[in-house]
Amino acid sequence: MSKSAVITNITITPVAFHDMPLLNSVGVHEPFALRSIIEVITDAGVYGLGESYGDDTHLERLDRAAKNIKALKPSVYDLNAIYSACAGSLKGDSTHGGDGMAGMVTTASTEDKIFSPFEVACLDIQGKLAGIPVSDLLGGRVRDSVPYSAYLFYKWAGHPGEPDDEYGAALDPEGLVKQAKKIIDEYGFTAIKLKGGVFEPAQEVAAIKALHAAFPGIPLRLDPNAAWTLETSKWVAKELAGIVEYLEDPAGGIDGMAAVANSTEASMPLATNMAVVAFNQLPSSIAQNAVQVVLSDHHFWGGLRKSQLLAGICHTWGMRLSMHSNSHLGISLAAMTHLAGATRNLDYACDTHWPWKRREEDVIADGALRWVPGGAVEVPTKPGLGIELDRGKLAKLHEQYLTCGLRKRDDTTYMQKFRPDFSATIPKW
Amino acid sequence: MSKSAVITNITITPVAFHDMPLLNSVGVHEPFALRSIIEVITDAGVYGLGESYGDDTHLERLDRAAKNIKALKPSVYDLNAIYSACAGSLKGDSTHGGDGMAGMVTTASTEDKIFSPFEVACLDIQGKLAGIPVSDLLGGRVRDSVPYSAYLFYKWAGHPGEPDDEYGAALDPEGLVKQAKKIIDEYGFTAIKLKGGVFEPAQEVAAIKALHAAFPGIPLRLDPNAAWTLETSKWVAKELAGIVEYLEDPAGGIDGMAAVANSTEASMPLATNMAVVAFNQLPSSIAQNAVQVVLSDHHFWGGLRKSQLLAGICHTWGMRLSMHSNSHLGISLAAMTHLAGATRNLDYACDTHWPWKRREEDVIADGALRWVPGGAVEVPTKPGLGIELDRGKLAKLHEQYLTCGLRKRDDTTYMQKFRPDFSATIPKW
Ligand SMILES: [Mg+2]
Ligand SMILES: [Mg+2]
Repeated sequence: MSKSAVITNITITPVAFHDMPLLNSVGVHEPFALRSIIEVITDAGVYGLGESYGDDTHLERLDRAAKNIKALKPSVYDLNAIYSACAGSLKGDSTHGGDGMAGMVTTASTEDKIFSPFEVACLDIQGKLAGIPVSDLLGGRVRDSVPYSAYLFYKWAGHPGEPDDEYGAALDPEGLVKQAKKIIDEYGFTAIKLKGGVFEPAQEVAAIKALHAAFPGIPLRLDPNAAWTLETSKWVAKELAGIVEYLEDPAGGIDGMAAVANSTEASMPLATNMAVVAFNQLPSSIAQNAVQVVLSDHHFWGGLRKSQLLAGICHTWGMRLSMHSNSHLGISLAAMTHLAGATRNLDYACDTHWPWKRREEDVIADGALRWVPGGAVEVPTKPGLGIELDRGKLAKLHEQYLTCGLRKRDDTTYMQKFRPDFSATIPKW
Repeated sequence: MSKSAVITNITITPVAFHDMPLLNSVGVHEPFALRSIIEVITDAGVYGLGESYGDDTHLERLDRAAKNIKALKPSVYDLNAIYSACAGSLKGDSTHGGDGMAGMVTTASTEDKIFSPFEVACLDIQGKLAGIPVSDLLGGRVRDSVPYSAYLFYKWAGHPGEPDDEYGAALDPEGLVKQAKKIIDEYGFTAIKLKGGVFEPAQEVAAIKALHAAFPGIPLRLDPNAAWTLETSKWVAKELAGIVEYLEDPAGGIDGMAAVANSTEASMPLATNMAVVAFNQLPSSIAQNAVQVVLSDHHFWGGLRKSQLLAGICHTWGMRLSMHSNSHLGISLAAMTHLAGATRNLDYACDTHWPWKRREEDVIADGALRWVPGGAVEVPTKPGLGIELDRGKLAKLHEQYLTCGLRKRDDTTYMQKFRPDFSATIPKW
């Protein structure tokens, strides 16, 4: 039977979809977000899907890895061999970046980033062949739907020179509360995250307090992407004691996080998707108790099974687990939902950029991913990821990639087009 | 499709097989070793196999867990739910032991011990349904055969009152060298482990040196099961520097192991299957660098997937990985071989008691597990574990269980029958 599970082809299609002018510490989102759509195809014609970053450097690496995998003719179960093929394809590649992170996450394992979408696609096929959802491959659902958070951003009303987008501007606490109301009205999210690091810390503290007043009892998080000094981090921690469920990446690096975490001011857990983004960073982080919450992300932690390893490590060391998001499409949302659906010790609502993309723009057929009350996505129960590629939609987003002109994510240069004095250097305050 | 994977029945059959009078720090092996054979059966009539300890306390727990699982009617993919069912069945159970370890491994997680054989049986079925070997479920083979070690024991010539067994006595270095020659002649093992803690440390050191002289270049290990004081452990470490690849459980507990490991005398890695036998012991062990090699054992680490978690933790923290063995039958050997076959960072030949059981005594049909040169077992490539139950053989070993009179492993009481002054208290020297 496993004969019909031999990988005979892999296609990688770069796509671009509209994004809104969301502000962060390194700049502002460009008009398009880039992703790569990975199709792994078996000799029996079964296909599996993966989704990853769309920067040119990353695409070149994915292509080299795909070539190595195809030469191997592995089955979709040979994940150890496929990992080696990916690692082998990266030999001699000492470049950095290319991960669609705009420089915010720079120390993740390139091998894990490259392997991830191939692994997800293989698990999609494994599930299809066994007639079970990917969540079953991962140990079975522990929840029928996965709660996501309302991911708020300071933002401009629209991209410069274009009409306002449907969310409009959010440049102060009042604007953010309005944004939160709109997004929660539509999705029903029961947790709120604010991307900070954009304005003076006092304004962002005021924003969190305004959200706390407007949504009493709703868990809040603030993530300045390491834009603060230790002193500022401690000051914010003191100001937001009892108000946020965690503070995400206030200061930079494991040492910076440890200094804040072990200060008397930090009464809340510190979370990260910047200081600890690879397995080799866990030992020193844990030794210093630098972070209390890890935001897992299968795109850079090496796929779904290695994300389960991360979850097991968090459980073993008493760290809590949340989930990180980049701008993404439906394949990633499906993978995130299966993973979170099968992860017992997921302690928080997961992050997602989903509301910021246009509803009609995706590469998967409609109807597979269902949002349910509480801002949650049902864990799909159809075989594999439970989604199907819509080739018409894929072609459209690929065409958009070809014409949009963007070849890597660069929030900083885009910002400097309008604010020539903008600097992405952190800490800022 | 997953409908046909619903668990509708579970049978647990205690069995006994002949064992030889192998000596250790807590006594001597009794004439029979006890095991439990677990069959999980689906609504479609597919069965999967697990094997575990056969002590009465353990059997009662397995029975209660099986009842809870059956009430749940889970699919073989619902491993998270099955784990919860096992954990739930143990609520209020505060007894210890019952694990066929004769008191040598006492701090393992009871939940993990109970869950393990059900998980293995479910993976066996998952593999059968997908038409792939269990090693493929675990990420795919990284080696085609798994090397095992020659596991030497000091032993009596035969059980008192019975004729000598085929190995005869081994009560001094010369006897052990003879034993090693016989066992290596038959299996071709390329690593040797000696179970120590039986005689004065000087004699065991002399035995290792004699083995080193007789088998130059072959990696050696010595395991006294924590029978030594810190001072003795350090003395042995000094004596065996450059001779053993690791020293296994010289002193007791994480603190004891840490004291030896961090001493100037210990130039070799320290290994354990006693000080660190559960996930909750890893943080303090790692913080103290107490052990450098973990002997994994899916029977008490919670099954094959949790053993993969352990392997991932070892890899992340730069600990090395070996594998522990109890007296076992073919189901366990198959499971150990699939696990080791799919574990990239298995650093040593695995332990096995295989040569100490009678060749004809087992519960599986002949021919599935093939020993190949080098003392290795081929990773089975048939679906699931790649083994089939031989119901005639199972009935025979169950009958033997019923008639042998043993209901738990108790090396100490058996020893005291012949050496009334024997004490299992450690440290001894
Ligand atoms: Mg973040
Ligand atoms: Mg041992």
